[in-house]
Amino acid sequence: MFQLIEGGVCAPLGFQASGIYCGIRKSRQKNDLAMIVSDAPCSAAAVFTLNKVKGAPLVVTQNHMADGTLRALVCNSGNANTCAPGGMELAEQVCALAAKELGLAPKDVGVSSTGVIGVPMELAPFEKGVPELVTALSHEGSHEAAVAIMTTDTVKKEIALLFSIGGKVCRIGSIAKGSGMINPNMATMLCFVTTDAAVSPAMLQKALSSAVQDTFNQISVDGDTSTNDTVMLLANGQAKNLPITDEGEDYEAFAAALKALCALQAKAIAKDGEGATKLIECVVSGAPDTQTARAVSKSVIGSSLLKAAIFGEDANWGRILCAIGYTPGDFDIDKAEVTLRSAAGELLVCQNAQGVLFCEQKAKKVLSEKEITIAVDLHSGCGRACAWGCDLTYDYVKINGDYRT
Amino acid sequence: MFQLIEGGVCAPLGFQASGIYCGIRKSRQKNDLAMIVSDAPCSAAAVFTLNKVKGAPLVVTQNHMADGTLRALVCNSGNANTCAPGGMELAEQVCALAAKELGLAPKDVGVSSTGVIGVPMELAPFEKGVPELVTALSHEGSHEAAVAIMTTDTVKKEIALLFSIGGKVCRIGSIAKGSGMINPNMATMLCFVTTDAAVSPAMLQKALSSAVQDTFNQISVDGDTSTNDTVMLLANGQAKNLPITDEGEDYEAFAAALKALCALQAKAIAKDGEGATKLIECVVSGAPDTQTARAVSKSVIGSSLLKAAIFGEDANWGRILCAIGYTPGDFDIDKAEVTLRSAAGELLVCQNAQGVLFCEQKAKKVLSEKEITIAVDLHSGCGRACAWGCDLTYDYVKINGDYRT
Repeated sequence: MFQLIEGGVCAPLGFQASGIYCGIRKSRQKNDLAMIVSDAPCSAAAVFTLNKVKGAPLVVTQNHMADGTLRALVCNSGNANTCAPGGMELAEQVCALAAKELGLAPKDVGVSSTGVIGVPMELAPFEKGVPELVTALSHEGSHEAAVAIMTTDTVKKEIALLFSIGGKVCRIGSIAKGSGMINPNMATMLCFVTTDAAVSPAMLQKALSSAVQDTFNQISVDGDTSTNDTVMLLANGQAKNLPITDEGEDYEAFAAALKALCALQAKAIAKDGEGATKLIECVVSGAPDTQTARAVSKSVIGSSLLKAAIFGEDANWGRILCAIGYTPGDFDIDKAEVTLRSAAGELLVCQNAQGVLFCEQKAKKVLSEKEITIAVDLHSGCGRACAWGCDLTYDYVKINGDYRT
Repeated sequence: MFQLIEGGVCAPLGFQASGIYCGIRKSRQKNDLAMIVSDAPCSAAAVFTLNKVKGAPLVVTQNHMADGTLRALVCNSGNANTCAPGGMELAEQVCALAAKELGLAPKDVGVSSTGVIGVPMELAPFEKGVPELVTALSHEGSHEAAVAIMTTDTVKKEIALLFSIGGKVCRIGSIAKGSGMINPNMATMLCFVTTDAAVSPAMLQKALSSAVQDTFNQISVDGDTSTNDTVMLLANGQAKNLPITDEGEDYEAFAAALKALCALQAKAIAKDGEGATKLIECVVSGAPDTQTARAVSKSVIGSSLLKAAIFGEDANWGRILCAIGYTPGDFDIDKAEVTLRSAAGELLVCQNAQGVLFCEQKAKKVLSEKEITIAVDLHSGCGRACAWGCDLTYDYVKINGDYRT
């Protein structure tokens, strides 16, 4: 249905990106400043963290997109500009700097930051870096931008898809970072999505809010909701489809592509969770409704006990049943059925909430793979949902036991 | 106010206990069967897990105490008798065996089980063990019973207090086990409390439900709510106080002693959490109400990121603020103040939700202790609460990564 393509955020027509090192991070080893710019004005949509502690950049960006449009995004890693004095002023200054270099108004620019919290961020690296960023802009710049926003991520997350709206070929692209809520003080999930589809701000926001519910809101590395979590979506209309201003077939086509992209990024983030060696996917079916299915799947992938068992490749289905059992919702636990699945095979381990005899050797084999699916059928309705997480490993403890000092 | 005394569940007058090895556990290294019996009839109260998956023994015990009384408790470790065929029948048979040996009715006996789930439990070890248990009963038997209910606990949890009701000296005693929701497949928090105070079943249940809210419900080792969690309370009236049948001064005296005892056991369980090296206490004040204070303190001690930071003795206050921030409730995060405290000193690390300068060396010293208090003042009201947890360590991952096989 959707074709994977290269190019990340620059895959859609009319988007340029760049990434450089400007000195926010102590080490030159990795870029720390990224920019994404559209050649034309964009509808903009965003979803921000629900944490009461919100990074200053989130507040500034939210203000700038009050009219439903943005044209450029600046993002740094190394400092979250959160819980630090003067954060709002600094975030505004960064937007003003970028606007000046790009010939835009400050309110056309959004800003994101990820990294340590509580440490004041300096303007100097941006004064030096933003002009360089603008010079470096290119229609092939997605890779540089993707690297610049990484923190403890071990792999770059760049995904783009081809799809069509009313016969017009459109593209949607993205870069993202995870990888726990981890970085220095607390991590940040960031995802920037671009598309050349023409979509009104209202419909863009609707599609994004809906996609996030079934994708980014269904992943967990450690259950900690960061202060800077942001998903941003820019649509510049360069694909020349009939603009989407209402629900209908075109909207459905766009929303489906967006959701598919978000699901891929969500899985990529879960798989690259801090210290992770395995991706855990929990597919729930037979729930009384979607909300319950979402909650059950998220309970399962969020259980520390289960995460440790999967790391140990131990088919400990009791922990799965336990996590299902403490999920709020109205369903009959006695009908629960659990199957473990991977590239190495499939194994029914629990039926009617009781264990079934299975071969431990086969279980070990199924769990030895890098991507494990836990399929739960509640036999209580038609609700379905998925959630993604990762195993809990020694490295998670190591990374988080002494990161800051 | 309360005097700590020796004797555990046998400290109150008229209670006997015993513990033996009967063969439910594979290894003879540790007892696996415990009994507590009162010389006289008892009011009984209990609080059971909220997990939808409930061990068979919980259901049977709940039925047996429908009339508000019990006289004996049997508890085994090594098998949780949960999610396994024939569990209800077996739990009934265990009660019947004990009743026969003790000359009681089966409905006078409660039963608990902790250990691996999903594995059918045999009756044979009980047929051999229960008569031995009854022979071994003694007014000094609390220690043997406390050891028999341990699973991955590293220390025995036996606490008793002396207090008075209307001038009459009373005693309250307990044994408990933790130590994650951990054991084989999933652990179980069990606490058995005895008292020689005379209290009606209704007031006993009221006092227990209230005590649990501020104590056992405020601890977390890994956020997983087990299928067998049980707190049981037996009151045999041997202290000869005027029976408590209503609220008033006497009830308050009893409830306060019970709460103090439960708080001590809750802390003991948190401190002995799987793999734990440190007890983390979070004291929240200035919350808009008690419920919010409870929720905030539990968020803080439940954060995997914070737990790992405390293991690493890293004063990562941003993670504390993050956990406060994602707690539901109506308060102004911008007033939050955080202080770290231990036997080595006290350190203000965050005021008005922003970092304050502090000496990293002093922070290291404060966090080098085995018991760490995180004091949070929300400056938004008079609500106060406490929660207890433990650090997240390599050993937690090790213990849970490959326990079952």
